[in-house]
Amino acid sequence: MASWSETKRRQGRRIAFVPTMGFLHEGHLSLVRHAKERGDCVVVSIFVNPTQFAPTEDFTAYPRDLSRDNRLLQAEAVDVLFHPPVEEIYPTGCQTHVEVETLSKPLCGMLRPAHFRGVATVVTKLFNIVRPHAAIFGEKDYQQLQIIRRLVRDLMLDIEIIGHPIVREADGVAMSSRNAYLNAEERKAAVCLSRSLRKAECMVRRGEASAKAIIEAVGAEIKNEPLAIVEYIKIGDLETLDEVDEIRDSAVLALAVRIGKARLIDNKVLIR
Amino acid sequence: MASWSETKRRQGRRIAFVPTMGFLHEGHLSLVRHAKERGDCVVVSIFVNPTQFAPTEDFTAYPRDLSRDNRLLQAEAVDVLFHPPVEEIYPTGCQTHVEVETLSKPLCGMLRPAHFRGVATVVTKLFNIVRPHAAIFGEKDYQQLQIIRRLVRDLMLDIEIIGHPIVREADGVAMSSRNAYLNAEERKAAVCLSRSLRKAECMVRRGEASAKAIIEAVGAEIKNEPLAIVEYIKIGDLETLDEVDEIRDSAVLALAVRIGKARLIDNKVLIR
Repeated sequence: MASWSETKRRQGRRIAFVPTMGFLHEGHLSLVRHAKERGDCVVVSIFVNPTQFAPTEDFTAYPRDLSRDNRLLQAEAVDVLFHPPVEEIYPTGCQTHVEVETLSKPLCGMLRPAHFRGVATVVTKLFNIVRPHAAIFGEKDYQQLQIIRRLVRDLMLDIEIIGHPIVREADGVAMSSRNAYLNAEERKAAVCLSRSLRKAECMVRRGEASAKAIIEAVGAEIKNEPLAIVEYIKIGDLETLDEVDEIRDSAVLALAVRIGKARLIDNKVLIR
Repeated sequence: MASWSETKRRQGRRIAFVPTMGFLHEGHLSLVRHAKERGDCVVVSIFVNPTQFAPTEDFTAYPRDLSRDNRLLQAEAVDVLFHPPVEEIYPTGCQTHVEVETLSKPLCGMLRPAHFRGVATVVTKLFNIVRPHAAIFGEKDYQQLQIIRRLVRDLMLDIEIIGHPIVREADGVAMSSRNAYLNAEERKAAVCLSRSLRKAECMVRRGEASAKAIIEAVGAEIKNEPLAIVEYIKIGDLETLDEVDEIRDSAVLALAVRIGKARLIDNKVLIR
């Protein structure tokens, strides 16, 4: 992988990189298509990263289908599918981590304290192997995207980080590999996330600026759905993610909700 | 700095890098001369890194003399002296650290718990800016050298790490910028470190394999010097630094001793 990239770089080619955990859906493929616009060649990695799962989480259960992913990526004509074995990314004796401190603490970091350390570490390794000019991340993992932006700035990596909008199903549900955990009834219930975000958006459009009022309305909307258990609903600064009391120009509304075995996240940037 | 390196890389030139905290002595210059043998061009950084000093330590007192350093490096005909301001390496909002976990804990890490995290973080940043093919580190900071080797492997950086032997004064004292803290009497006392290491070497040559026996003899030798206060004396595995009871083929004897205001370190690889 590294020597392929080195050759392309020497040829003056721009490498765009899409890191994924596989089990690809239309959301991933939209990142891949955007990567093709932003680079001369596209590398997609598929690596289910053990260090971003807690022992209690779904690392082994996480859905995988490499041959299907491979077909989908061939159809998109990507240049490289990079699928390293775990022991190559985490060899024996390996003991180095990377952590973006403050940004890793709120939201998903509260209930998954080691999660973003695992993400930051694996992304640093993948960046150093693939050596892309640009990397594309979905905005569904909004906190992750901000963490990667910060990581790249802080560690002085010469990589352009590009966020790409959430891709949604016809009913509004954000595409996610973890939607595979949902049965038919739960899948229907999952609509409550995006519905509540649209509600918040309407409130802001009508002049509501109080984070408390919006969070309460979003919470009430989700509680209408008996299968949904709210993990968090927060409104924070777009870049620092610090919670805000009042939406001045813009802020991000982020939420995590458990439905059945799935932990679903979604978010919306609210603009006044 | 980054664009200079990018140009040199495109020209196929090999960049050798010597990171320092300045106040250069013959030890640093021997690293620079070795760098010239190992690369087509040489970059030396001078950066007194605040994050590797604890609040109680000597960050502000650390000796600095940029114009003298500059003259010395010009005499060696290095290509670049890289001397970034602190706020460029640690800009506002910066919050990412790199840590080599296990190797950072023993020896100097015991009394300086955040020290090697600061070292690993700044070295990662400097590597990403300078993008060298090779980097040269002195073996006096033996633990630091092993940490950097591990860091580069773990984060998949394509950089050759080269260790260079300790340079000593005529009386055996390891060269160090911190020797500047010593008055004449203390400077004489500082000989006890290297003298005790030579004693250990003799013992091993005569067949002694017990770490305990060697550490006791080294401790006794240093206690002969009333100005010296032992911080640690340890014998460990060359790579993992794990303490060993018995020297089989080889091991490293490392010690830290306080004399006056200075905390001095020294080490010797013992080979049976």
